[in-house]
Amino acid sequence: MNFCSQCGGEVSVSIPDGDNLPRHVCRQCATIHYQNPKVVVGCIAAWDDQILLCRRSIAPRRGFWTLPAGFMENGESTAEAAARETLEEACARVELGPLFSLVNIPHINQVHLFYRARLLDTDFSAGLETLETALFSEAAVPWPEIAFQSVSVCLHAYFSDRRAGCFLLHEDTLQAVPR
Amino acid sequence: MNFCSQCGGEVSVSIPDGDNLPRHVCRQCATIHYQNPKVVVGCIAAWDDQILLCRRSIAPRRGFWTLPAGFMENGESTAEAAARETLEEACARVELGPLFSLVNIPHINQVHLFYRARLLDTDFSAGLETLETALFSEAAVPWPEIAFQSVSVCLHAYFSDRRAGCFLLHEDTLQAVPR
Repeated sequence: MNFCSQCGGEVSVSIPDGDNLPRHVCRQCATIHYQNPKVVVGCIAAWDDQILLCRRSIAPRRGFWTLPAGFMENGESTAEAAARETLEEACARVELGPLFSLVNIPHINQVHLFYRARLLDTDFSAGLETLETALFSEAAVPWPEIAFQSVSVCLHAYFSDRRAGCFLLHEDTLQAVPR
Repeated sequence: MNFCSQCGGEVSVSIPDGDNLPRHVCRQCATIHYQNPKVVVGCIAAWDDQILLCRRSIAPRRGFWTLPAGFMENGESTAEAAARETLEEACARVELGPLFSLVNIPHINQVHLFYRARLLDTDFSAGLETLETALFSEAAVPWPEIAFQSVSVCLHAYFSDRRAGCFLLHEDTLQAVPR
């Protein structure tokens, strides 16, 4: 951030009065520009014992498989975001269930939320950000080709809970992987 | 938003290629400035059958009572945010429990998360944004003086679950109140 989105003046980084963290502050109009984590929401859409995955057509992780998910938008609820992303990425209609997984990823300032859901039909197909969509049984999940660690963590918990016959809310925090 | 935070150019509102929502786009460098919901995190800190409330010293709702909570910061997890806000607003140390309540407030682009927690001691006091802190039994909660609807919704669910002897995850979406 270099300029103030309100007045166009230059911003600098300083700790505002009464605050304890450095913020981008406008030198001209003194507006404080807070930056906060973003919420990514998606769902595990089930059809009998299979779940729906999408192969990504865009960066990052083009060609890898993921759950339908994306950034929550202003003006919607987390559940609405999950259903919308599933429609956009997999052209799939779902009946949404409860929140199943909350994955914190502090080093990229994101919180991922995954709902359980039931596919209403198998009339799904690849959306704009998807190369292909498919149903996978637990045994068929292409683990080395899963796009994101949050999705792997969520899916492992999902299949584990399903085997145990009891779905709980799971909360995890991912650490940055040293290169 | 009037100016681009990257280059200082003027922004206008348009739907970018491949998108389906209006965004603030820089006319000069074409940067798209997404705006997304913010996460507010707090906790219900219990001491025996009482819970900790804070009377706000700042706007909005100065003088009203609330759970210790505030905006999640970049670089932290939701649980870390809940513990930090409780320390900042009520100078209270807690052992955090599971997520208890997720309240969507789409008309102000916020998601509120409240954790259950256990106070480690009663050595709490008012932080900078708090006039006073106090423990309340269910019967003593000053309902008409609760600052925010998300807090009322969370507390009603909390006491109801406590009476039932079983805490579940609660999810709610608040609607804008017509004036």
